[in-house]
Amino acid sequence: MSTPSHGPLVRVPFADLQALLQRIFQRHGCSETVAGVLAHNCSSAQRDGAHSHGVFRIPGYVSTLASGWVDGRATPTVTDVAPGYVRVDAAGGFAQPALAAARQLLIEKARKAGIAVLAIHNSHHFAALWPDVEPFADQGLVALSVVNSMTCVVPHGARKPLFGTNPIAFAAPCAGQPPIVFDMATSAMAHGDVQIAARAGEQLAEGMGVDAQGQPTTDPRAILEGGALLPFGGHKGSALSMMVELLAAALTGGHFSWEFDWSGHPGAKTPWTGQLLIVIDPSMAEGSRFAQRSRELVEHMQACGLSRMPGERRYREREAAEREGVALQEQELQSLTALLG
Amino acid sequence: MSTPSHGPLVRVPFADLQALLQRIFQRHGCSETVAGVLAHNCSSAQRDGAHSHGVFRIPGYVSTLASGWVDGRATPTVTDVAPGYVRVDAAGGFAQPALAAARQLLIEKARKAGIAVLAIHNSHHFAALWPDVEPFADQGLVALSVVNSMTCVVPHGARKPLFGTNPIAFAAPCAGQPPIVFDMATSAMAHGDVQIAARAGEQLAEGMGVDAQGQPTTDPRAILEGGALLPFGGHKGSALSMMVELLAAALTGGHFSWEFDWSGHPGAKTPWTGQLLIVIDPSMAEGSRFAQRSRELVEHMQACGLSRMPGERRYREREAAEREGVALQEQELQSLTALLG
Repeated sequence: MSTPSHGPLVRVPFADLQALLQRIFQRHGCSETVAGVLAHNCSSAQRDGAHSHGVFRIPGYVSTLASGWVDGRATPTVTDVAPGYVRVDAAGGFAQPALAAARQLLIEKARKAGIAVLAIHNSHHFAALWPDVEPFADQGLVALSVVNSMTCVVPHGARKPLFGTNPIAFAAPCAGQPPIVFDMATSAMAHGDVQIAARAGEQLAEGMGVDAQGQPTTDPRAILEGGALLPFGGHKGSALSMMVELLAAALTGGHFSWEFDWSGHPGAKTPWTGQLLIVIDPSMAEGSRFAQRSRELVEHMQACGLSRMPGERRYREREAAEREGVALQEQELQSLTALLG
Repeated sequence: MSTPSHGPLVRVPFADLQALLQRIFQRHGCSETVAGVLAHNCSSAQRDGAHSHGVFRIPGYVSTLASGWVDGRATPTVTDVAPGYVRVDAAGGFAQPALAAARQLLIEKARKAGIAVLAIHNSHHFAALWPDVEPFADQGLVALSVVNSMTCVVPHGARKPLFGTNPIAFAAPCAGQPPIVFDMATSAMAHGDVQIAARAGEQLAEGMGVDAQGQPTTDPRAILEGGALLPFGGHKGSALSMMVELLAAALTGGHFSWEFDWSGHPGAKTPWTGQLLIVIDPSMAEGSRFAQRSRELVEHMQACGLSRMPGERRYREREAAEREGVALQEQELQSLTALLG
């Protein structure tokens, strides 16, 4: 997640921002259903201060739709494979409408079998991952999701990039407060945050990436222009990134992060891969006790001096947005409005 | 995993080492069944060069059994909770016999439902985690396991230790070669490796831990004597460690890493917590294709210059041990034999 860039801010009611984005998505080739899902996802990220996945992404969505690389009108096909297994062919469209189409079946299976998995393939994921898992925790379930992306990370001990930024997101209910949620790239930084730093002319911390010659760099442009990111945490983050390729691509039937070729689609930005979600019903073993135990964990972390829980900043930004409206730069709002023309 | 310590080495056939360990476990209070499971686990770790979880652990097992902290004769109770959910009460015994008692049911459920979860509680885990997942991959399944341990890791941004070393292990089949397997502490180092470094009088790399005053240290003794480890990879590793507490303890009904009190049992070393395993049948979506895709991933990683795959060193050590016997220090073998007296 990033800090907002510079420039005068405006505040827009969430519903207005969502409606604006919905119109933009529809204007640029999405069906009403797909536009609704993406608009809610993207305004939620902006509302929660996840700026690298908020309205910052809209130009990328628009250029991708214009390039013909993604099908904004795709209808996902949901297959009920087994008592704990749902598969979705996203039909070359976005992953979020595929998840939305399968969500109810996935929840029913998790409640009945105790655990269920959703395997999405033939899908494009260009958004934050936490909006995919948080709603399950709101319903008392524990959710874990992984999605692979596009080659830009050098495996630990290798010389060339192969993996995507391959995030892992997790959500669990917590008594008396919003769910515990995290969403982490397995790269040292999220790709969107590198783009934001490049745009702002800022330098990165050391250990984030390498330049086109494979040499360490703190220049975000050097990473974006022929360079690559490193995994977080050395060989361990690298192993997790490998696991994400196996779960999100090999297991679902999607593409690995290096397998798709968008060179015939200038403007294409959305990785065409796969996504896996695992949902567990914690009441199976512990009845209603899980959320209380989750709360005890939080209290112990705070008692150890933890200043901020994972996800806490998002909830704070969300509260502020509910009171005052969603913050975005005046210039961003103008650019969005221009996309309706 | 660690490098072996110094001293003259001997080579012992695997079956002989396993038989010796089995006798030791039985001599010190384990039932034949429990002794068999632990002896196989511990000799496998020694065979594969995972020295921090090999015979190095035997004195800890013995002192724990003597202290009355763990029940070496416990009979686990397996409950068939739901089509994808198995629960085991390890009855204050070790986690490995609990897993062994539930393994067949777990596999049947994963093959039928597509995914299944095993929740073990009231269990002691004092071993490497990869032996718990690798056998599932040998049968064509994908397995993920987490286990929490005992307070010795300071959450990122906190002042005091709370989490255990909380490892994550993963295994997936791979066509034409042994499974892809990793087993990583979510701490910067495994606790056993800190103990081995302390015993060998070696210094650690920076960023591994803090001393009793919370100051960074490279002295393993300072970490063990009132100090603590740090998570790997900063806030991301810390979030994963938190997730392990939620999955392995809160979800199973086990203890968090800070909840058990062994002060009345001098010599006790085994964390009394919980363990979660998730097993997925990759044939549900992709038929027999998964292992081939897994192999393609490995080949691409190698083509990028990766010198060593996760788990590769273990397989190399295993092959050597099959040819020449399992390596251990002469002094270790003497100490083991003395434990039969």
